[in-house]
Amino acid sequence: MDTNKRLNLTMLCDFYELTMSNGYFACGMQDRITYFDIFFRTVPDNGGFAIAAGLEQAVEYIQQLHFDDEDIAYLRGRNMFSEEFLQYLRNFRFTGDVWAVPEGTPIFPREPIMTVRAPAIQAQLVETYLLLTLNHQSLIATKANRVVRAAEGRTVLEFGSRRAQGGDGAVLGARAAYIGGCKGTACTVSDELFGVPAGGTMAHSWVQMFDSEYEAFKTYCEIYPDNPTLLVDTYNTLKQGVPDAIRAFNEVLKPRGLTKCGIRLDSGDMTYLTKKARKMLDDAGWQSCRISVSNSLDEHIIRDLLMQGAQIDMFGVGERLITAKSEPVFGGVYKLTAVEDEAGNIIPKIKISENVGKITNPHFKKLYRFFGNDTGKAIADYLCVYDETVDDSHDLEIFDPEATWKRKTVYNFTARELMVPIFRGGKLVYKLPTLAEIQSYCAAQVDTLWDEVKRFDNPHTYYVDLSQKLWSIKDELLRENSR
Amino acid sequence: MDTNKRLNLTMLCDFYELTMSNGYFACGMQDRITYFDIFFRTVPDNGGFAIAAGLEQAVEYIQQLHFDDEDIAYLRGRNMFSEEFLQYLRNFRFTGDVWAVPEGTPIFPREPIMTVRAPAIQAQLVETYLLLTLNHQSLIATKANRVVRAAEGRTVLEFGSRRAQGGDGAVLGARAAYIGGCKGTACTVSDELFGVPAGGTMAHSWVQMFDSEYEAFKTYCEIYPDNPTLLVDTYNTLKQGVPDAIRAFNEVLKPRGLTKCGIRLDSGDMTYLTKKARKMLDDAGWQSCRISVSNSLDEHIIRDLLMQGAQIDMFGVGERLITAKSEPVFGGVYKLTAVEDEAGNIIPKIKISENVGKITNPHFKKLYRFFGNDTGKAIADYLCVYDETVDDSHDLEIFDPEATWKRKTVYNFTARELMVPIFRGGKLVYKLPTLAEIQSYCAAQVDTLWDEVKRFDNPHTYYVDLSQKLWSIKDELLRENSR
Repeated sequence: MDTNKRLNLTMLCDFYELTMSNGYFACGMQDRITYFDIFFRTVPDNGGFAIAAGLEQAVEYIQQLHFDDEDIAYLRGRNMFSEEFLQYLRNFRFTGDVWAVPEGTPIFPREPIMTVRAPAIQAQLVETYLLLTLNHQSLIATKANRVVRAAEGRTVLEFGSRRAQGGDGAVLGARAAYIGGCKGTACTVSDELFGVPAGGTMAHSWVQMFDSEYEAFKTYCEIYPDNPTLLVDTYNTLKQGVPDAIRAFNEVLKPRGLTKCGIRLDSGDMTYLTKKARKMLDDAGWQSCRISVSNSLDEHIIRDLLMQGAQIDMFGVGERLITAKSEPVFGGVYKLTAVEDEAGNIIPKIKISENVGKITNPHFKKLYRFFGNDTGKAIADYLCVYDETVDDSHDLEIFDPEATWKRKTVYNFTARELMVPIFRGGKLVYKLPTLAEIQSYCAAQVDTLWDEVKRFDNPHTYYVDLSQKLWSIKDELLRENSR
Repeated sequence: MDTNKRLNLTMLCDFYELTMSNGYFACGMQDRITYFDIFFRTVPDNGGFAIAAGLEQAVEYIQQLHFDDEDIAYLRGRNMFSEEFLQYLRNFRFTGDVWAVPEGTPIFPREPIMTVRAPAIQAQLVETYLLLTLNHQSLIATKANRVVRAAEGRTVLEFGSRRAQGGDGAVLGARAAYIGGCKGTACTVSDELFGVPAGGTMAHSWVQMFDSEYEAFKTYCEIYPDNPTLLVDTYNTLKQGVPDAIRAFNEVLKPRGLTKCGIRLDSGDMTYLTKKARKMLDDAGWQSCRISVSNSLDEHIIRDLLMQGAQIDMFGVGERLITAKSEPVFGGVYKLTAVEDEAGNIIPKIKISENVGKITNPHFKKLYRFFGNDTGKAIADYLCVYDETVDDSHDLEIFDPEATWKRKTVYNFTARELMVPIFRGGKLVYKLPTLAEIQSYCAAQVDTLWDEVKRFDNPHTYYVDLSQKLWSIKDELLRENSR
């Protein structure tokens, strides 16, 4: 069974989406207009914000939505679905509207990062894959952004394909890592498909294939005299690896007047070894040689290494980035927030829960971010009902939705709507930015956050407030449903 | 860019595999026969063993190895590769041999789970994807097996697609979870492609779409009278959800003489709520109603719930299984163990490291598992050189390779070779078992392990010993290389 040829992403849905859809169809509710929000509840790693990513794949997914004959045949074989419903699926396509926060935007708990407005069946069927792509890439972009910030301007490369959770985990993970600020990847196909710069030089096996490490290095430099990076820890880093590298640079690069080169360490005490290696390289006249390291790194280890004075120019970050090892789940959810009645009135819906944290923000909403006009910094996010408009030429009183007596007046600010239209009536109305544009946008937007929000631990909680109107609607729904 | 159409898995390689390959080609080493082992160093979650999985996808990958015109064009554009090498890639296919441990086999640190024997370039290029598929699926199968053992015979279903790390993470993760013992999945396409039984009934949105919970339940039961499972926690589980479910069962199922049904809880205190719900159902005559739960479960929470007397028939396990959240990395590595000289002699190779744990077991090897003839239990695994054979009709003295004075004589045992031939000269010589066969085999093989090895915490360390001959070769290589 060749998954890669046959996989129809439309069928990557939870089975309950099909049973519910068949159910809506059976009771004539299939054309009822529904509103669903995607939002998340907590920032991974106790961080102060996350980075939205995965929208491009969501767009491709929605554009390709369809059921093949073999999918219909499989569903028929389950003996649960009406022939009318199967016939309906045969001509299925997405005709709804989608709004979303652009990739690279810093996002906060409980605010929508995507809103889907569509007939019930359509909105229901896209649940799993939309969550999957936004959850996965936002997870990796968020982690990458932490790692990149820890490196304080030094280059961070994504090296984790072999430990990724599946092929997409590697390929799209490298894409998301680039959005978060990584400069490149080891994953070749992520370069070919998405333009994430791929690089890499040698594994230990290259060194072992030759009769000596020196011979392996010399041969490599002869084949790739333009900026060779030599892996120096196959036998003994300081006694053998670094001296062999210097000898190869001297014999192959120097006569040609070439100075760009590097060494990489993949084991041992990085601080000690890089300090010693730096001195050996400098003493030999190879100040231009860059030092890379790549052994189970993450934001905390990188920060430690730099604090201890390790001499590192480039970090290759593997499994702890590509799986977001310290917290490998981004908990985005997909919740019904409203339905339209036959007259087109929007009826807000709420999901109560025994777990208070699982209660949803009802209604079709708008999401604003307020920026201070003198600082350029983000002050707060603000959720309001779809028919409200924020007038940023006037002061605005906002309040904590869970502690309504905590109030604050915002003034001299600019309000920007964060969600932009992606699909209108099933048609793509959004121009997908290039990956490089997303990376730059992400860096610029992260710069609008105060340092207090960017702390790795115990960050300041950024405000995500509700308008008075939205808060009142929510409060009323809560009271109604708890009666 | 539609990844799903264009992705050629051959290009899912680390870029260094291409630079090394071009290098081998440049110095005429491309046909040199090399041996690589895949092995791992530590069991996730401090467990006593792991479960091998992902071989079927490794086989498909090797069979499809090829470079498309657009791949060659991309590589040419990198300006690093010779035209002769690019020409060579155009006709590239795999001609080597592969041995591997069958899927579902319990495996232990430092023993090979796959050995590749192939010309240098071929063996080098397959590194990333072979690791990726074995690492990913072994990770999930291992985690699933823990969760399933915690459930002590109750049904465990995989529910995590929406939180998976990419589409393959969901689809192949569900496959791996089934190998580890899950009875099914929520992921529809994993059923369609792999026959992992997919199921699911309703989300909260179904309930919210109706004017009342009771109406939502009744409608669902009318459409799916055959074993409906109702989600009872949208508003208030005990005050409203369970009574509404009972009423719907009474009104729709009872008159038809149907008894199979279920309820599902997705929030709240599972022990308290399921005990109360069980009593309410039993009192109403619905002893046949099964109770499912599905809120951030893992092996520890399941064990706790059962110890506390929770009344649960079925566990839906989501994000903590599909991402192996508690330890989301399976650390398989791919290391050169030998090369052949021109006369066909096999020269063992070793990788020393500053980190002792990263030192490899050299040489082309065989892997045996010894089973006690009276108990049927696994006693030890035994690595020897390819030309050695274990004669299990005689006693055998084995020893701890890191504490050679710890010796033990094995007697009355059967020695079974664990790695089987998969490819010979590039041709598939292995009949892939069905997924159901793999699941049964896995359960039977886990049964051969002593309970002490199966403990969740502080398990007994299972022996993986080296033959005297292999140990001596390793010792000599270590001495040689540390001089």
